[in-house]
Amino acid sequence: MARVNENFLKLKSGYLFPEIGRRVTAYAAAHPGERILRLGIGDVVRALPPTVIRAFHEGVEDLARDESFKGYGPEQGYAFLREAAARADFAARGARVEADEIFVSDGSKCDCANIQEIFSLDSVLAVSDPVYPVYVDSNVMAGRTGPADESGRYAGLVYLRCTEASGFRPPLPDHHVDFVWLCSPNNPTGSVLRRADLEAWVSWARREKAVLLFDAAYESYIREEGVPHSIYEIPGAREVAIEFRSYSKTAGFTGARCAYLVIPKDLKGCDAAGKEVSLHSLWNRRHSTKFNGASYPVQKAAAAIYTPEGRHEVRAIADFYMENASLIRAGLQKRGFTVYGGDNAPYIWLKTPKGLGSWEFFDELLNRAQVVGTPGAGFGAAGEGWFRLSSFAQRTTVIEALERIGRVF
Amino acid sequence: MARVNENFLKLKSGYLFPEIGRRVTAYAAAHPGERILRLGIGDVVRALPPTVIRAFHEGVEDLARDESFKGYGPEQGYAFLREAAARADFAARGARVEADEIFVSDGSKCDCANIQEIFSLDSVLAVSDPVYPVYVDSNVMAGRTGPADESGRYAGLVYLRCTEASGFRPPLPDHHVDFVWLCSPNNPTGSVLRRADLEAWVSWARREKAVLLFDAAYESYIREEGVPHSIYEIPGAREVAIEFRSYSKTAGFTGARCAYLVIPKDLKGCDAAGKEVSLHSLWNRRHSTKFNGASYPVQKAAAAIYTPEGRHEVRAIADFYMENASLIRAGLQKRGFTVYGGDNAPYIWLKTPKGLGSWEFFDELLNRAQVVGTPGAGFGAAGEGWFRLSSFAQRTTVIEALERIGRVF
Repeated sequence: MARVNENFLKLKSGYLFPEIGRRVTAYAAAHPGERILRLGIGDVVRALPPTVIRAFHEGVEDLARDESFKGYGPEQGYAFLREAAARADFAARGARVEADEIFVSDGSKCDCANIQEIFSLDSVLAVSDPVYPVYVDSNVMAGRTGPADESGRYAGLVYLRCTEASGFRPPLPDHHVDFVWLCSPNNPTGSVLRRADLEAWVSWARREKAVLLFDAAYESYIREEGVPHSIYEIPGAREVAIEFRSYSKTAGFTGARCAYLVIPKDLKGCDAAGKEVSLHSLWNRRHSTKFNGASYPVQKAAAAIYTPEGRHEVRAIADFYMENASLIRAGLQKRGFTVYGGDNAPYIWLKTPKGLGSWEFFDELLNRAQVVGTPGAGFGAAGEGWFRLSSFAQRTTVIEALERIGRVF
Repeated sequence: MARVNENFLKLKSGYLFPEIGRRVTAYAAAHPGERILRLGIGDVVRALPPTVIRAFHEGVEDLARDESFKGYGPEQGYAFLREAAARADFAARGARVEADEIFVSDGSKCDCANIQEIFSLDSVLAVSDPVYPVYVDSNVMAGRTGPADESGRYAGLVYLRCTEASGFRPPLPDHHVDFVWLCSPNNPTGSVLRRADLEAWVSWARREKAVLLFDAAYESYIREEGVPHSIYEIPGAREVAIEFRSYSKTAGFTGARCAYLVIPKDLKGCDAAGKEVSLHSLWNRRHSTKFNGASYPVQKAAAAIYTPEGRHEVRAIADFYMENASLIRAGLQKRGFTVYGGDNAPYIWLKTPKGLGSWEFFDELLNRAQVVGTPGAGFGAAGEGWFRLSSFAQRTTVIEALERIGRVF
């Protein structure tokens, strides 16, 4: 019988969100007619804006006629999208990223999960705790860890504990690691790394010759002036950082599917003999061998985000979600909860009341208030006793959820 | 400095099609104004049919209103598409595949490259020679091979040599292997495995407890009655086979991006202790951790292929390409070429004239006739001296290419 990849068997239970889905489905089946309010999965609920929809239709229409038909596109993405992203997301903020350093994909979850393939299996990875599970699970599956202990921590991974005292910012590793996942604005804690934090990370990475994997999926929710939206706003970052961007949260593309990552040509790794190897080249080989380009009409739709009208419309949607975040934050504070995030990020990170465990609070919230959130423990051992609420919801949902929570707690 | 995955460094030159692209670009730059005819990459050129376009637009329109907006869909694909595929692609042909055994993705290249992740790194893989490079390269990257020899064959891979004498059908391995890639109708040779061939493979796999990876991307080009379109038409295949399907060639989705694979729940692997493990469960974990579902409007468009009008329109496009295939086949035969394929597959596999090497013939065809094809050697050592022409072209291109080839050879 064919031998399976036993690293998969190390994974603790299901991926977090399917597990939440199972519990909610079971509750709904047992309580038909009850209206469940979802502030759990970070999934957008507002329609794509008109400018994006128009471009999306135009892209589809191009496929309707032989003269304008598009078959396989460049695996790396169409130039019209890569160039628009390079200009608006980087040049406009004083950061240098060339269009051909941008690799368009069908989603940031794929990019985050796949990037580890270009590193050696014995590379040591550091992650924040709590952490977006994909960073960890993809490395477990690849065999870069040992088994998990009781708290869910995998042997061989370095966990950077993010505490309330440090504002949930990960500390620099106290010994050498080869690559580090950073996420700012942070999922799940809603915290943000400021310029000085990022400077410290870039300086550390340069000294340690480590690679930073910088997930900026939520950068469009930064509201504070002076907070970098890209790691490349920090001098020297081009030699140490890969950045991940997504249109999912920026522009409501969770169902449309489009994202990109940036690997500067200045970024090098090495082989066993110490010879320099371009990570850009390795990723290009990976991307062109194992991926066939993102959907053409979807790329057309994504490019429309960079038009003046598109930017305006997309910003209005992000503002709407950030108003939700303010309401949730204020509403919970008024009810005596300890809360973080929600000012530069669409997530609110709250301390569970009465010393409840994260999953206990999840079940209580579901059973007593019919509100779905995300247990902090699902993001790692350090998330125990914490809970994530998402502001990706309609306003009426947010208001009713706050009322119900107020009644119960 | 971070250590890279050195398996990438074993890969021979670029992936085949980018290499062709480079040579064509260089030729075009040196000869502006010359019209190059492309019968190289297997990329469709005909527009998506009206029924598919209409559904695609409707899918986009659903994203334009909050009430019908779709965010993250099921990672495995929407039920409307999985159920339609289970009915039309399998039940209608007497094969049993349940909807929840179907995993929808953004493309078959990704599926083919990713499936190897669920097998242990020391599993032994057999591939045909010649072979679609993705089957091989993805395993090289994962570390399942040693370095390549001068002919491009990687140590540790088992190559099943497909010869003219055997009609380019791969022989059964003469010793145990753990998994095997089969592709029928075949890319690149255009050959097809008939019922007796597939029965022999299924019987072999059951005896050896091996897994068959059956790539049926070109099944819609089968014109001969009685040739199976799915491996699951063979009794016993559910315990030994994974099947790969693509809408790229079936319905012109190379730019739209949609495909699926099937893993029956009856298919098991084992861990080191010999304990059975469900491959369906492993893939489900992989798919839900590293992928976030295919684009919703694209899935809507794909589902429209299964409507009566959609089927009719899509069939007409496939027929058009198969008429091209007949023209190429007959035209080359008339000019004295030895040709195979083109009857149940959109590819024509021809013996290079005058004993030319595959790349020599490529360059000669490009330089003297301005026709682009694909060198057989690019598909493996056994492809040397052979050449692939694709029938995915407009009729005028096919006719002119044949005239030019006739003038030169």
